[in-house]
Amino acid sequence: MATSNVGLRVDQLTTPAFLVDYAQVKANCNNMLETCNKMGVRLRAQTKTHKTIEGAELQTGGTKKCLVTSTLDESEFYADHGFDDILYGYPLIPFHMPRVTALTKRLEKFHVMVDSRLAVETLLETPPPSPKTWSVFLKVDCGNGRAGVWWEDEEGIELALSLSSASSRITFCGVYVHCGNTYHADDPKDVDVLRDENIERLLKFVERAKMRGVVCPTVGIGSTPSCRRPADTMKKLTELHPGNYAFLDVQQSTLGSCSLEDIACCVATRIIGHYPRRNQMLIDCGFTGLTKQGEGKMPSGYCVIKDHPNLKLCSMTQEIGFVETIKGKLDYAKYPVGTMLFLLPWHSCATAAMYPVYNVIQDGRVTAEWKPTRGW
Amino acid sequence: MATSNVGLRVDQLTTPAFLVDYAQVKANCNNMLETCNKMGVRLRAQTKTHKTIEGAELQTGGTKKCLVTSTLDESEFYADHGFDDILYGYPLIPFHMPRVTALTKRLEKFHVMVDSRLAVETLLETPPPSPKTWSVFLKVDCGNGRAGVWWEDEEGIELALSLSSASSRITFCGVYVHCGNTYHADDPKDVDVLRDENIERLLKFVERAKMRGVVCPTVGIGSTPSCRRPADTMKKLTELHPGNYAFLDVQQSTLGSCSLEDIACCVATRIIGHYPRRNQMLIDCGFTGLTKQGEGKMPSGYCVIKDHPNLKLCSMTQEIGFVETIKGKLDYAKYPVGTMLFLLPWHSCATAAMYPVYNVIQDGRVTAEWKPTRGW
Repeated sequence: MATSNVGLRVDQLTTPAFLVDYAQVKANCNNMLETCNKMGVRLRAQTKTHKTIEGAELQTGGTKKCLVTSTLDESEFYADHGFDDILYGYPLIPFHMPRVTALTKRLEKFHVMVDSRLAVETLLETPPPSPKTWSVFLKVDCGNGRAGVWWEDEEGIELALSLSSASSRITFCGVYVHCGNTYHADDPKDVDVLRDENIERLLKFVERAKMRGVVCPTVGIGSTPSCRRPADTMKKLTELHPGNYAFLDVQQSTLGSCSLEDIACCVATRIIGHYPRRNQMLIDCGFTGLTKQGEGKMPSGYCVIKDHPNLKLCSMTQEIGFVETIKGKLDYAKYPVGTMLFLLPWHSCATAAMYPVYNVIQDGRVTAEWKPTRGW
Repeated sequence: MATSNVGLRVDQLTTPAFLVDYAQVKANCNNMLETCNKMGVRLRAQTKTHKTIEGAELQTGGTKKCLVTSTLDESEFYADHGFDDILYGYPLIPFHMPRVTALTKRLEKFHVMVDSRLAVETLLETPPPSPKTWSVFLKVDCGNGRAGVWWEDEEGIELALSLSSASSRITFCGVYVHCGNTYHADDPKDVDVLRDENIERLLKFVERAKMRGVVCPTVGIGSTPSCRRPADTMKKLTELHPGNYAFLDVQQSTLGSCSLEDIACCVATRIIGHYPRRNQMLIDCGFTGLTKQGEGKMPSGYCVIKDHPNLKLCSMTQEIGFVETIKGKLDYAKYPVGTMLFLLPWHSCATAAMYPVYNVIQDGRVTAEWKPTRGW
C-alpha cells in the first residue's frame, strides 16, 4: 500500500480516505492572509490542524515564515523543510531544552513560550547557543483557562519584567494569547463578545506592563472562531495566530466561522452493508477514521454527511460507522453497497491526525498527496 | 526524532509516549492461549488492538498462524511478515476483491467474511486464483447488532447453503460471531449472561444449518469480555477470537475482564504547569495522545492515573490534558513540573492507534520498539 494515489479518481480510493479540496484550502488560507493584511497585523499561522509542508506554504503565502506549532516534532519538521520564524507555542519545561537549543541554533528565528517562573529561570540558567539569545513569548490567559499567566495577576507582569531585563540572554518578543474560550460560545454573537473581551484584557495587561517599563513588541491573539470574525478591535494588535481556518469543520460552522461549503476537508467512506431489521447501514469509517470528537450530539450525529441531510452517523466502533435516517425509513435503493459518502468532520484537527496521507483533490482526481508529520 | 528509544530509561522518554509492559503483555497472551487450550478450542487472535508483528507473535505463541484482522492493510502487513491462516474479519464488498485475490494467491490460508447476498454473488462471479478456492466465513449476528446476518433469519441459512454448495469456487469455513454486546453489559454477571446467550443462539443457528445439510467446520465466537470470563459453554465451540486481551484497559476492568494491574499498556506524560487559581495542573497528553474514548464519565475522568487515585483527567485539547483532584485541594508540592504520570487508557485499541511507536518496557527501560501498521 505504499503506492501513490496521485492520478486516481476519488471513486477509486481505498476508504476511509482523507480528502482535501485544494481550491478551498487555498481560498481559506488566502482569506486569512487578506484579513490580516486589512487589519495591518501579521499572521503567525498555527500548523497543528494539518501538520503538512504544503499546508504551511499556503498559510504563509509562500514565504515559509512566521509559524506557531503545537509540538517540538512539528517545529523540527518545519525547520527541516526550510521554514523559519517558528514559535513553539507550548508551555516550556526544562525537559524541552536540548531540542529547543538545537532549534535556536539552526533557525534564524526560533521562539519559545513561557508561562511560569520555572520556565523563565530555566532560560536564565541555560546559556543560549552563541551568538543567539533565547527568543521568548509570554503566554497570557485572558479567559481561556488553559495555559498562560492570568491577565489580572501580578505574576505575569513580574515574569515580563524578568524576561525584558535579561537582554544578554533573552529577547522578549511580547505576549501571546489563545482565545480558545470562543469555542465554548453559545452562538456567533457570543464569539464576538469573547473575542473582544480577550483583546481588551490583553491590552490592559500590555498597558500595565508598559507602566512598569516593559515594552511588548508583539501583541498577539488567536483562535479560528475569533479570526474568522475579524473586528476593528484587532487593529490594536500586531499578530493573529489561528490555525483551524485552513480546513475548517462542522464545529466552526456552528460558531459562525464559516458555512459548510467552506470546509476544505472530508472523509470519503463506502457503504459496506444494509441492515433493514434495524433501519441502519454500515460504512467503513469508524473512530480511527473520524474520531469521536463532538460526542455525536448533533442531529446528524458525529459528522455531517455531505448532500444527505437526512442521514445520521449515530455511532462508531474501531473500523465501522453506523448510519441511520434522522426521520423515516432508510431507502436502501438510494444507497447501494459500495456507494461513497463524504463526511464533514466535527473537528478537522482531530480527524486529520488519524491519516498518514491526505488526498488533495482537484476536478475529482487526486493531484497530490500531503504527508503530515506525527509524534511529539 | 527518527532515533531509537531502545536503552532509554522511562524517565528519559519524550512524552506523551505509549508504553507496553513486556512481561504483562506476554502473560496476557499466554493466559488466552491457555484458556483456549483448556477449552479445547483454537485461538484465532484478533490483531486490531496493537497491529504489531511482535504482539501477534505473542498472541499466536510463536506459530504465526491463525489471526483475524480488522483491515486489509493489517492482512497485508501480517502476510508480508510471514504470518498465515489470516481471516480478514470485515464485511466483504466488491471493491475489496483485487486485494483479496492477491492475498488468496500468496497465502496458504486466507479467509474472507461475508454477511450478504451481494458478497456471496461477488465471490461466485469472480474466479479465485488457480488452484485456490475462496475460503469464506459467514458472519452471524447473535445480538451484537453490527455486521452479520441475524441468527434467527432464514437469510443466513440461505447464504450458508449457497456457500457450502459451490465447492469448486468456495470453501465454506463456518460461522463467525463477534459478541461485542458484552461491552454494553451493566456488570460482569451481565457479561456472562450475554456470552452464553450469544453461544446459545449461534449453536441454534448451526443446528438449523445442519438440518438443511450444511456443515459448519468452524464455530467461532469472540470478544475480550466474554473470553476473559471463559465458561464450559465455550467447549461446544471450535474457535475463539478476542483481541483486546493482549493489552486490556480500564473499560475491561469495569467489565470484570481484568484488574487494573493486568493492563499491559499506558501513556507516559509529564506535568507541564501548575494553575492553582483553578486547582488544576496541565499535562502534555491531549486527545492525540489518549483519545476521548469513554467520554470522561469515570470519577477519574478520561483515564485512570496510575498510583494517584485522587487525580482526575477532566478534559483534553489537542496536546494538553487538564488534571484536577477528585476531592480537596491539589498539593502541588507532590507534583513538580516535569513529573511523569502514567495514564491507563479507557480503550487501549483507540489509544494505541495514536502512536507510531510503542516503547516496550522491561525493568524500567525500553528494550524494544514495536511499530504498528496504519491505514486501510
